[in-house]
Amino acid sequence: MVEQPDQFVFNTFAFLVWGALVMWMCAGFTMLESGAVRTKNASMICLKNIGIYSIAGLAYFFIGYNLMYVDVGNLIGSLEFLYGPSVDEKALLGGDAGAVSAVVENGYATMSDWFFQMVFVATAASIVSGAIAERIKMWSFFVFTLILTAFVYPIVGAWTWGGGWLAEKGFQDFAGSTIVHGTGGWAALAGVLVVGPRLGKFKRDGSVKATPPSNVLVVTLGVFILWFGWFGFNGGSQLALGTPADAIAMSHVLVNTNLGAAAGVIAALAISRPILGRIDLFAGLNGAIAGLVSITAGPDIVDHYWAVVIGAVGGVLCTIGIKVLEKVKIDDVVGAIPAHLVAGIWGTLAVTIAAGGRFHIQLLGIVSIGAFVFVVSFVIWKVLDAVMGLRVSADVERMGQDVGELGLEAYPEFVLMPEEYDE
Amino acid sequence: MVEQPDQFVFNTFAFLVWGALVMWMCAGFTMLESGAVRTKNASMICLKNIGIYSIAGLAYFFIGYNLMYVDVGNLIGSLEFLYGPSVDEKALLGGDAGAVSAVVENGYATMSDWFFQMVFVATAASIVSGAIAERIKMWSFFVFTLILTAFVYPIVGAWTWGGGWLAEKGFQDFAGSTIVHGTGGWAALAGVLVVGPRLGKFKRDGSVKATPPSNVLVVTLGVFILWFGWFGFNGGSQLALGTPADAIAMSHVLVNTNLGAAAGVIAALAISRPILGRIDLFAGLNGAIAGLVSITAGPDIVDHYWAVVIGAVGGVLCTIGIKVLEKVKIDDVVGAIPAHLVAGIWGTLAVTIAAGGRFHIQLLGIVSIGAFVFVVSFVIWKVLDAVMGLRVSADVERMGQDVGELGLEAYPEFVLMPEEYDE
Amino acid sequence: MVEQPDQFVFNTFAFLVWGALVMWMCAGFTMLESGAVRTKNASMICLKNIGIYSIAGLAYFFIGYNLMYVDVGNLIGSLEFLYGPSVDEKALLGGDAGAVSAVVENGYATMSDWFFQMVFVATAASIVSGAIAERIKMWSFFVFTLILTAFVYPIVGAWTWGGGWLAEKGFQDFAGSTIVHGTGGWAALAGVLVVGPRLGKFKRDGSVKATPPSNVLVVTLGVFILWFGWFGFNGGSQLALGTPADAIAMSHVLVNTNLGAAAGVIAALAISRPILGRIDLFAGLNGAIAGLVSITAGPDIVDHYWAVVIGAVGGVLCTIGIKVLEKVKIDDVVGAIPAHLVAGIWGTLAVTIAAGGRFHIQLLGIVSIGAFVFVVSFVIWKVLDAVMGLRVSADVERMGQDVGELGLEAYPEFVLMPEEYDE
Repeated sequence: MVEQPDQFVFNTFAFLVWGALVMWMCAGFTMLESGAVRTKNASMICLKNIGIYSIAGLAYFFIGYNLMYVDVGNLIGSLEFLYGPSVDEKALLGGDAGAVSAVVENGYATMSDWFFQMVFVATAASIVSGAIAERIKMWSFFVFTLILTAFVYPIVGAWTWGGGWLAEKGFQDFAGSTIVHGTGGWAALAGVLVVGPRLGKFKRDGSVKATPPSNVLVVTLGVFILWFGWFGFNGGSQLALGTPADAIAMSHVLVNTNLGAAAGVIAALAISRPILGRIDLFAGLNGAIAGLVSITAGPDIVDHYWAVVIGAVGGVLCTIGIKVLEKVKIDDVVGAIPAHLVAGIWGTLAVTIAAGGRFHIQLLGIVSIGAFVFVVSFVIWKVLDAVMGLRVSADVERMGQDVGELGLEAYPEFVLMPEEYDE
Repeated sequence: MVEQPDQFVFNTFAFLVWGALVMWMCAGFTMLESGAVRTKNASMICLKNIGIYSIAGLAYFFIGYNLMYVDVGNLIGSLEFLYGPSVDEKALLGGDAGAVSAVVENGYATMSDWFFQMVFVATAASIVSGAIAERIKMWSFFVFTLILTAFVYPIVGAWTWGGGWLAEKGFQDFAGSTIVHGTGGWAALAGVLVVGPRLGKFKRDGSVKATPPSNVLVVTLGVFILWFGWFGFNGGSQLALGTPADAIAMSHVLVNTNLGAAAGVIAALAISRPILGRIDLFAGLNGAIAGLVSITAGPDIVDHYWAVVIGAVGGVLCTIGIKVLEKVKIDDVVGAIPAHLVAGIWGTLAVTIAAGGRFHIQLLGIVSIGAFVFVVSFVIWKVLDAVMGLRVSADVERMGQDVGELGLEAYPEFVLMPEEYDE
Repeated sequence: MVEQPDQFVFNTFAFLVWGALVMWMCAGFTMLESGAVRTKNASMICLKNIGIYSIAGLAYFFIGYNLMYVDVGNLIGSLEFLYGPSVDEKALLGGDAGAVSAVVENGYATMSDWFFQMVFVATAASIVSGAIAERIKMWSFFVFTLILTAFVYPIVGAWTWGGGWLAEKGFQDFAGSTIVHGTGGWAALAGVLVVGPRLGKFKRDGSVKATPPSNVLVVTLGVFILWFGWFGFNGGSQLALGTPADAIAMSHVLVNTNLGAAAGVIAALAISRPILGRIDLFAGLNGAIAGLVSITAGPDIVDHYWAVVIGAVGGVLCTIGIKVLEKVKIDDVVGAIPAHLVAGIWGTLAVTIAAGGRFHIQLLGIVSIGAFVFVVSFVIWKVLDAVMGLRVSADVERMGQDVGELGLEAYPEFVLMPEEYDE
């Protein structure tokens, strides 16, 4: 179809508006995580998250986007530095009105797509910080973030959205249940395995120390921000708005995204009673995330009730996952692995139930991306551990990273209760 | 007028963008309420609000929308389950390009309108939770929310926006001063009357216990969120964007919405000194809400100074309302009844001064919707009280619902002052 | 070029969507400032900020916009009261379909531009409150805000965006590094000089009392809000969306805005160690603001790496500025002067390096706007000091403005540490 100028503007504007909303998700992760950790580590989480978003944006500009989208063969794209507008776009902005038709042919402004893809990398990286919070060194974490956003995520992206080998096999992942959330989740899992649980989290008598969120309002705000931002995350992943068919599909995406999240909340709250022993707000909030992650692989379903089913199952799996992680003594501070990885796997499979596609290809995608990200991340974490050290000293961990590493308390004027350790 | 594809896209995209912003208002209510209650009940408010939004979204999908908009006679629409895209839309997405003209004829994507209407239900329900906070049982509240969003609000909506008897009489309520905010306000009023005031709020000596917000920053954030989201609430209620006339009207709506809110703040602050004895921030914040609610019935005014007048009067009435409720010993924790119900009534009448319309029809709408919602809500609250119990035990109320009912403190690491009771 | 209806709608909708996002920046300033001050002054900051936004919106409606944009000669525009839709727009809304072509010719709905410009005034005013926090009287501050938003900022705007003498000389300031952020910064600088430092900030022994943010999470949230809102601030300043060239330019604006901010964070964090003695989160957060302010004068750069350079230098200058202000005993509570004024000057000059333009004209604009705003503000502050008093009493300052002036603590149930004074 020949693109029209109006379609070009619609497509571009949708990337910009929805992309801005996805950037806002980084505030959501920051609030979710900083409210979930002990008060003594909350400033560090704020620093890590503003750092993540900044590093990701720069890394993707200098390296990542080219690796993911430019001249992708089977495995990776171009290793060139920097990315920018097309020649035709430069000509048009330079006053060459004749370049319009070539520009319009592309369907959207080059950099509007870059903007939208950039905020996705930041999301993947944000998932990691919450899981390994309260004990990982700032510098080691930032180096990992740089590698993840410059190389690891872009390579996964090249295989799939960039047109590489998994795309050719027909792997489906609309907005990234596996490509974004799985990648973040596997990287987080590798991190928590290498760095180990927080001091005193798993006691010698086999019991688990409760570490409820230190600021529930802020966690709740974070989840609302994520839910809100997810309309951009999934809606923008339609990648076009200019035709009635696109506009309809985008509407379905927003509706299903919301239904999936709502179902995730209700299912997680309901199942939290038998599994966790009480109606658990934190499980419900994670259920929203899990519902959102679950529906992300196929939010363009026409039969909307499937979104309810998919989101609800995601919420249940996430709540079970929280309990299972505790049982196997894996310490994921905010429940990022159940909410993003477990729900992401479910969503990537569920897309075939709801929207067609081949189950074994979905499984192949999940396994190959999982294996790649987990192994590479594990190696990076290990190398960082050997070279820079991954874990703060026990003293710093007891004192908190805010005072011990950063020198800035999150709530310096509030009287706080010291954390007790009975290992 | 024959609709064009571009108009279809504009209309649809406006529903989606503004609808997403309205969803964000639920975060605003959550922050406003959780910052306004005692710290000991703040987690419960978070749970109730994420629950409201989830329940409302599902209830409206399963039942509410059909009841409100599909085949509406005088009183109610269809009692069918579920809602979905039109046959033509399915055909178009299924590859039948010939369906485009039939699709475009509808003016917007079916589900984009559903999305926009859905977030409105959630708003109506959100109004209730703040007023009856700190003493109402979680489960009873959720059952009420379910009935309100599946039946009560949709029936009010069927009478008006759905094309029922009030619409035929010419009742005007652009974005829902009465339909949304009045409905929420009446349901809240019924609730506070049935459940009664908090323990110790009204003392034996006739004095009123001060219960200032426990976290003023969070309350203020909540009000800013609501103000921001209201641009979507009122702007999207233009229901179309595709023509210059629509775009102009939408611009007026945003301008008036902002002027009404600003005037509400200033008027409420100014009047708070004589009425409440000091420049009162909480009155000013409620003044913003009241200004917004007031202008919501007719934000498309061409003479913008009217928006200033309407908003200012709304802010004054709200501040007076706060004082009056105290006098008659009605305990509305966040001032939801003055801000939404009182200002909503004013706005619904004021629309006739500013934009034409018939005063007695407006009054008929206010009274009939008010009577319906109040009576039905009162009965539901009473039935819930008899069946499940509406009020937590005095012990739980003193201890706080966070510990007593939910087992999750909002600020577990902060040293807090115990509340004193001298009844 | 003859404007088409679709272009009219695009341009208008862009103003509305991006304008709403700029309004949201006021929440960002509120959070940044209320989290940065002592807990004992946090409610007052909330009041001041909701007051600023309300006053600015009304002042700009009654006076400011006409002064800035209507019939601007060299120095000022019209002194008429009120602003409203065009005659053609009123005719169109009134049913005269023939008015469409005249309306469309204007390019956008009159009031959509008003809305967008109005939120800019509020931003300029918001910059002031943070710098002079914790000691300035509420009423004096509000009077200053009124004059700033009704007269001072509109006159600066008339010189530039309104088409006055600086515009004719070719002064370039895309979205207001100097026009908005410089104006706010100079007004703030005048204010802190007149009102003086907080009690005990600069001790007799020459040391500086540390006053870290009292709620780091809220400050971080504020910065994320500002970053998010800045996409609207800069993106909307393209002032059009309807053609492919506009859509491309707007994409570049968002990309550069983000790159500038990210570079500002990283550069400020890196330089904070040598300058402030540690990796400083607050410096990093201010670095984001500084990066954003720096790129605001020319965010439409085609060579995006320049945005990285400009933002990074902005972040470094801001961090140096924080240290320099301390050395010269100027007490800027939130670092508004380094982040907005210093970075704004840099950005206004840097635009010539990156995007052409004449250095000496830029300098002329910076100096003349700076001289005007600083001198006028200084006089206003002095007059207010003489007439109403500018500074709260020492008792109120020690006790905090929340209790002393407002009667509403920000965190009444939390046990807080009293501030110590050892002058």
